[in-house]
Amino acid sequence: MRIAIDAMGGDNAPKEIVLGAIKAVKEFDDLEITLIGDEQQIKQYVKGTLPNISILHTNEQITSEDEPVKAVRRKKNASLVLMANEVRDGRADACISAGNTGALMSAGLFVVGRIKGIDRPALSPTLPTTNGEGFLLLDVGANVEAKPQHLLQYGIMGSIYMEKVRNITNPRVGLLNVGTENGKGTELTKKAFELLSNAPIHFIGNVEARDLLNGVADVVVTDGFSGNVALKTIEGTALTLFSMLKDKFMSSTKTKFAAMLAKSELRNLKGQLDYSEYGGAALFGLKAPVVKAHGSSNEQAIYSAIKQTMHIVNKDVITKIETDVQHLPKQGEM
Amino acid sequence: MRIAIDAMGGDNAPKEIVLGAIKAVKEFDDLEITLIGDEQQIKQYVKGTLPNISILHTNEQITSEDEPVKAVRRKKNASLVLMANEVRDGRADACISAGNTGALMSAGLFVVGRIKGIDRPALSPTLPTTNGEGFLLLDVGANVEAKPQHLLQYGIMGSIYMEKVRNITNPRVGLLNVGTENGKGTELTKKAFELLSNAPIHFIGNVEARDLLNGVADVVVTDGFSGNVALKTIEGTALTLFSMLKDKFMSSTKTKFAAMLAKSELRNLKGQLDYSEYGGAALFGLKAPVVKAHGSSNEQAIYSAIKQTMHIVNKDVITKIETDVQHLPKQGEM
Repeated sequence: MRIAIDAMGGDNAPKEIVLGAIKAVKEFDDLEITLIGDEQQIKQYVKGTLPNISILHTNEQITSEDEPVKAVRRKKNASLVLMANEVRDGRADACISAGNTGALMSAGLFVVGRIKGIDRPALSPTLPTTNGEGFLLLDVGANVEAKPQHLLQYGIMGSIYMEKVRNITNPRVGLLNVGTENGKGTELTKKAFELLSNAPIHFIGNVEARDLLNGVADVVVTDGFSGNVALKTIEGTALTLFSMLKDKFMSSTKTKFAAMLAKSELRNLKGQLDYSEYGGAALFGLKAPVVKAHGSSNEQAIYSAIKQTMHIVNKDVITKIETDVQHLPKQGEM
Repeated sequence: MRIAIDAMGGDNAPKEIVLGAIKAVKEFDDLEITLIGDEQQIKQYVKGTLPNISILHTNEQITSEDEPVKAVRRKKNASLVLMANEVRDGRADACISAGNTGALMSAGLFVVGRIKGIDRPALSPTLPTTNGEGFLLLDVGANVEAKPQHLLQYGIMGSIYMEKVRNITNPRVGLLNVGTENGKGTELTKKAFELLSNAPIHFIGNVEARDLLNGVADVVVTDGFSGNVALKTIEGTALTLFSMLKDKFMSSTKTKFAAMLAKSELRNLKGQLDYSEYGGAALFGLKAPVVKAHGSSNEQAIYSAIKQTMHIVNKDVITKIETDVQHLPKQGEM
């Protein structure tokens, strides 16, 4: 298997991207990686020649400030675009970038292309839960104006991923809503509820945002706007609490001593909430696995994203999605 | 001033409701309270006669399981409905309930009535920020299908409240969105952005959910669905983190000792995040102040909600809203 990786995307590129790639090829014999980016910079971190890593050189890159759609159209030699080309032309089975999320979505859509029967791809991170299993949230912003059939497709795709890649039998699919009772919410959630109820998945009905981290569902389906709000609220609340906690512990000699005593447990708590362990956010609905690693990814996060991407390829998640969506009622029939 | 209070609403009713009311009338000379509910139960907690508290007896009540609109229509003698009648008939200046949120919204809308020029009332809690100032989030679910002009009205109402009641000069109003750049988001947020930009308020543009608790804005405007998701995600994430933190501290003798050392600081952290201190969630856009106290309100939370409601009455927030919305462009003109 060959994975194309944008070596120039993310806050710690290219160093941590390259180190993560090296770690992965050392561990997995059947893995080949193409790193795309500035050869000179990349070679600083590849000591000697590694048989399973090749470099595709380019000077151009898309930054986090670039307007996504325009950047993908105009910067034809950007590392992120060349990465997508590798997949489109069959030279790679999947691709990973920690760069500009919007640009990755555009490249995924315009270069890699949609699966027939999927109207909109969904950006799908796995978020931590207290029981350590995590849940898949989709969509978190690939498509901010969702229609009911999009949410149905998200439910199917999410269910396949959690079953095949994370080995959860009969994953529980929930619909994010303002209350758990049937009939709650907007026209969108009401219609999506109907469609999901009749889909060949284990739909458990409406779930509320306050129960997400308790693992109320394995897959949580929502429109890209609300999903983005939920994701960023979880991130923001957790960061704020940790920072307030740190301030409290630094406030006196006594509390500093307390922090020292509980150091490993506090670090362990932070680890439990670190979703880079679960890999990146896959962009489901495309003809090949396209994975967004977190912007601040370090070596370990890139390694996790590579491992996750290998699972998606090995378990043939894309073919399963293609097969399952063929059996869904078409938009006109709903 | 007279405030009507639903003595039977909330998890700790009537005890904590009555105690909160007593605390308030003891402190504020110009305050009279009508407690509505089961006289016998209420009298258990009113020791002796209090000149400024009167009881309006009823056996009927709306429970948290009742379907809101139906309950308000059918249970004509429920404490929550009689409470709203007191306001409608001019016997009270404002009302407070810790009961069924949907029923309170229905009673507000159908009994108290909307301000002319406001299309939809907005449920508006104040949430904690790290600097202790708090921010007003609206709407969190009174109206799940919002239109651009609703968000404009929320911005105006929120701004008036923060200025008049919380003494913030020129409050910063932000629009919740998936990114901070102009032109982000859905059709709804794009149009609302335009309207808010031209409104007589201090509009600071788009804000992201991850910055809410950092106090990025004093007023955050969004549709009721996303606002509900944001509110419940903050609650859920904070509760989950505290519960995980507690588990960590209870895991060994060493960490238990650490917890003991940092006890007051940890309690202080929880206090900083306790938004019952900021009072209840006002339902703005109605002809009189209607305030939803948190379902789990204790004496102190009810007391805070009463104090907040008195401020809304004293600062004449409703008249100011009525005046300001008259000058807004009408729906047809947009």
